Amino acid sequence: MSLSFVLGGARSGKSAYALRLAEGLADGGRLVMVATAQALDDEMAARIARHRAERGEAWATVEAPLALEDAVRSLRPRDVAVVDCLTLWLSNLMAAEADIADRTEALIAALEASPADHVILISNEVGQGIVPDNALARRFRDEAGWMHQAVAGACDRVVFVQAGLAQVVKG
Amino acid sequence: MSLSFVLGGARSGKSAYALRLAEGLADGGRLVMVATAQALDDEMAARIARHRAERGEAWATVEAPLALEDAVRSLRPRDVAVVDCLTLWLSNLMAAEADIADRTEALIAALEASPADHVILISNEVGQGIVPDNALARRFRDEAGWMHQAVAGACDRVVFVQAGLAQVVKG
Amino acid sequence: MSLSFVLGGARSGKSAYALRLAEGLADGGRLVMVATAQALDDEMAARIARHRAERGEAWATVEAPLALEDAVRSLRPRDVAVVDCLTLWLSNLMAAEADIADRTEALIAALEASPADHVILISNEVGQGIVPDNALARRFRDEAGWMHQAVAGACDRVVFVQAGLAQVVKG
Repeated sequence: MSLSFVLGGARSGKSAYALRLAEGLADGGRLVMVATAQALDDEMAARIARHRAERGEAWATVEAPLALEDAVRSLRPRDVAVVDCLTLWLSNLMAAEADIADRTEALIAALEASPADHVILISNEVGQGIVPDNALARRFRDEAGWMHQAVAGACDRVVFVQAGLAQVVKG
Repeated sequence: MSLSFVLGGARSGKSAYALRLAEGLADGGRLVMVATAQALDDEMAARIARHRAERGEAWATVEAPLALEDAVRSLRPRDVAVVDCLTLWLSNLMAAEADIADRTEALIAALEASPADHVILISNEVGQGIVPDNALARRFRDEAGWMHQAVAGACDRVVFVQAGLAQVVKG
Repeated sequence: MSLSFVLGGARSGKSAYALRLAEGLADGGRLVMVATAQALDDEMAARIARHRAERGEAWATVEAPLALEDAVRSLRPRDVAVVDCLTLWLSNLMAAEADIADRTEALIAALEASPADHVILISNEVGQGIVPDNALARRFRDEAGWMHQAVAGACDRVVFVQAGLAQVVKG
């Protein structure tokens, strides 16, 4: 069981990198996309459907906008899974007024106990711009930073993607 | 013919790095600044004039706020050119309602066919802050990320500059 | 005498990294936190008090919201000091309408002349998001970028921290 964390800015190519990484690691097991996006409107629904079509037949999809820990626990031996992405999960958790530190800890425990062969977590770097004007955005930025530290600490390998190029920063 | 891409945040020192790189590569050919800035107001005009004075006599300047492909094609053998910068070009293209993916592809084709010895492209990293409130800024951020991926893919060398320090991330 | 610069985004783990670095470098001298935060309201006062308690008895604290040069000059031989952080200092200087380039130069001169054994400066990367809407934030972003370039140029070692992981970019 190995854990990887792929961090990058908006449109940095991090999802494409994670999918290629997963496809390279798959060794007869399932390829599973654990998607945290919620189809709250038509635009989002269309985007989710387009992403699913782009991944193709080889991928199973599990939707986990909130219960990500359960989704990770329900993976099977030899699965290679991609969680796309932690920032959307965080956003969903904040909307549901969940305790972020508790849920992050629960996610890491679930990941470490997961029967899957490999889990690759994707998240957005959001903390390198100017301090946001609004308090909710500031809180989101803080929670994302703390979550990234905790997840990176638990992962065997951490990769930072920028302009489609991956740099290994751990592992 | 070689292509370099210098990416960095605001006031990261990326332009100074690119100018020094170009001056080091010049081998008797022209040093050409391909400037995408538009003097839309007095402040911008003054800034453009100051930058030109700072570069000194050794540099020729070509203005290409929109027709960057033509500017790249019109370079001469032995030229070492710096394109400063892609984010301003993107901004100009969006204001002109151009198709960004088409123009990016056309730019890359022009770069690969350019008679110049070296072209160094500069751009701003804009995708590592919080998601912007307004839709235009979100679109700009998305288009910049996609453009950076395409340009980085076509370049021999990609450098990320932060606090005046360059890290080679490709090449 | 050595100078280190720890740069990172919001909640990237840069302060924790700098504290551990300082504790590892201390060799019988004092550990000194040079804090640039100002307790302008109760929330900030509580946060400052919490940080002080977290650091524990081993650390002396010097408050220097504006007169950072004096604080650096007043360090003693064998001291290992952490300046947390330059972005707050910049914010205080801008509110006081100080000349940022002059003060940055004065800080660097004070650091280079400091009797301390090691000084570790912390700052926030703020220049990798979208261009801010308001002029003050744009100016802050520009000044931070210029200050980071000057400080990084003067330091023996520069480290970029992301998701709790440190990358050496100089030294």
